[in-house]
Amino acid sequence: MLYDFTLHTPTRIYFGKDSLDNLKVELPKYGNNILLVYGKGSVKKIGVYDKVIAILKECGKNVCELSGVSPNPRYSEVLAGAKLVRDHKVDLVLALGGGSVIDCSKAISAAAYCESDPWQKYYKDFAEVTCKVVPVASILTMVGTGSEMNAGSVITNEETKEKVGRVYPEILKPKFSILNPLYTYSIPKYQMVSGIFDMMSHLMEQYFSGTDDNTTDYIIEGVMKSIIHSSRIAIKNPEDYEARSNLMWSATIALNDYTGLSKKQDWQVHMIEHQLGAYTDCAHGIGLAIISVPYYKYIYKLGLDKFVRFAQNVWDIDVDTMSKEEAALAGIDALSAYIKELGIPTTLREVGATEEMLPLIANSVLNRGGYKEFDAKDNLEVLKAAF
Amino acid sequence: MLYDFTLHTPTRIYFGKDSLDNLKVELPKYGNNILLVYGKGSVKKIGVYDKVIAILKECGKNVCELSGVSPNPRYSEVLAGAKLVRDHKVDLVLALGGGSVIDCSKAISAAAYCESDPWQKYYKDFAEVTCKVVPVASILTMVGTGSEMNAGSVITNEETKEKVGRVYPEILKPKFSILNPLYTYSIPKYQMVSGIFDMMSHLMEQYFSGTDDNTTDYIIEGVMKSIIHSSRIAIKNPEDYEARSNLMWSATIALNDYTGLSKKQDWQVHMIEHQLGAYTDCAHGIGLAIISVPYYKYIYKLGLDKFVRFAQNVWDIDVDTMSKEEAALAGIDALSAYIKELGIPTTLREVGATEEMLPLIANSVLNRGGYKEFDAKDNLEVLKAAF
Repeated sequence: MLYDFTLHTPTRIYFGKDSLDNLKVELPKYGNNILLVYGKGSVKKIGVYDKVIAILKECGKNVCELSGVSPNPRYSEVLAGAKLVRDHKVDLVLALGGGSVIDCSKAISAAAYCESDPWQKYYKDFAEVTCKVVPVASILTMVGTGSEMNAGSVITNEETKEKVGRVYPEILKPKFSILNPLYTYSIPKYQMVSGIFDMMSHLMEQYFSGTDDNTTDYIIEGVMKSIIHSSRIAIKNPEDYEARSNLMWSATIALNDYTGLSKKQDWQVHMIEHQLGAYTDCAHGIGLAIISVPYYKYIYKLGLDKFVRFAQNVWDIDVDTMSKEEAALAGIDALSAYIKELGIPTTLREVGATEEMLPLIANSVLNRGGYKEFDAKDNLEVLKAAF
Repeated sequence: MLYDFTLHTPTRIYFGKDSLDNLKVELPKYGNNILLVYGKGSVKKIGVYDKVIAILKECGKNVCELSGVSPNPRYSEVLAGAKLVRDHKVDLVLALGGGSVIDCSKAISAAAYCESDPWQKYYKDFAEVTCKVVPVASILTMVGTGSEMNAGSVITNEETKEKVGRVYPEILKPKFSILNPLYTYSIPKYQMVSGIFDMMSHLMEQYFSGTDDNTTDYIIEGVMKSIIHSSRIAIKNPEDYEARSNLMWSATIALNDYTGLSKKQDWQVHMIEHQLGAYTDCAHGIGLAIISVPYYKYIYKLGLDKFVRFAQNVWDIDVDTMSKEEAALAGIDALSAYIKELGIPTTLREVGATEEMLPLIANSVLNRGGYKEFDAKDNLEVLKAAF
């Protein structure tokens, strides 16, 4: 069923080998004070940091910096960035990095002039933004989250051990994002496959939902097939430009609203992974991969026809001679084999989870189940199967 | 190969049964003087005209009207609209209808304050817009062209017998478009299948190009499969909401830049049809369908692998036992069978073309061939095969 929807994707995308040149076109549109947000230093290693600083200087900007943002960006980092925004009267928050840095930048913008406690307001009460926000833009060097063209932001509160995602109002979508596939060449393989599974998971979370059967499903299937195709090339040759380009653009498409239009959606794998991440600091996409197979085996009977379609249209399995249940499981098995092909661990114990953690994680997971309400008992069953 | 690209799709889409309510949200953003552009009166028959007028009055707007816009919108209509814009100091050109009305509205906006002859400037020299333009928005009642979310505009000069399309700067993309599938229920079947083939053709013109093989190709294949699926339902039951919704949204996606990203593209079928339309006033999608099969049979050897992929991925043909040439032709045959299934005429003589017209048409066609330069001789060969 096609539900009513509103779509507005105002982010301007500059994609390609020379896309950084467009920073000079964009910067004059904003005031002089720039907060540059980045991570642990890989942007310096690959040389893009120096290029960005040179362009900022050339355009006469005053630059302050928030560096060292964590892979699971922390609320303390958000507060530090928000203080910089206020102290330096920042006009543009420029994220240089992957989804973590962009997510953190959106949260910084929303927190800087927040009238009350930002964590409580935005990540507990999921309240609207009512204060002034500072424009956000991004230069992408890691691929997977899709944060470069959406309003999503996942933040970890290290004190309360909560990792919570929210979608901000569209005013916090990046004004522009610069996507250069060459910047992704040097990402370590473990991070690359984590990003690849993150985009696959975004598509699956939107695809598996109720009895939807619409144009969006066909688009999702197409993007999934493209990711599977390109990832197989990229894990053999990380410097295959075509494969890395396709992966970069697929990640953006996978979560820029288009692949969620008119879909009921089911985000429970992400909900479970967020709490796994809060307890173990496991790479996001790796956690998603570990949880996905047991999760889908736990719920597939509630969406049997969709899982049959997944087997047939995404994995090219000839389902004609199978029962629906056999076909659905064959699709999940194909997903499982693909995860192994990517070299991703398949158990929680491999990423630092302990048996004692499982009930703690299960109890703190939010419910975003699309096929059924997910309570602590359900979460624990999936976690045990993944352990 | 993924070529560099810039993407910006600022049009806000309101989709669904209650989407017209959003007109009240949008109108206050613009000045008081509205030019309402519509066609031959079908919008009055289906009742949407009265609803729009009521909302315009409720919002305190002054309304002037340009009615009677032709299915192939004429340059004289553009000039009449441009005069209305100047005379009434229009603040928003609101298109109510299908692609013809929206194309005409964009041309009106660009022509109103044009410093020189608009036909020469925009449709002969393809020059940039340097004058003030008036914002354009749309309420869609016919489906096919995708004009509701792009900057394209095809205008027929009835004096010079030229039908020319161009892409305007993004400032002429509709600010918002309201898409209600219910409005499309009453479209006569001939118009409906014309629209369906128009969207298929947009996808094929972007798909068949050079040796491209990227995420965009997978997305195009998905949207094509969705159109084939939904059109088979809609021709049996025109009031199947899901099918009509999917067709409406597929048409928008098929030409809103996403399905053209990083694609070399080949628009020769459209070029030939435009001149056919200028001579016969044949419905656009019908002309495209008649020309497509002979056109693809004329050029498929230049893009053999892509035509094999088309057979396999779009038409689910088992190509493993075939030669590449057999597989490619099987795909084109499947397309031909689908055209017949839609009840579309398959020869030019059925839509009013005469043998004498063919050289005149062939000589006036522009070249936008993706696989080879198309000259008058090439065009004539295709036209003869289609006759």
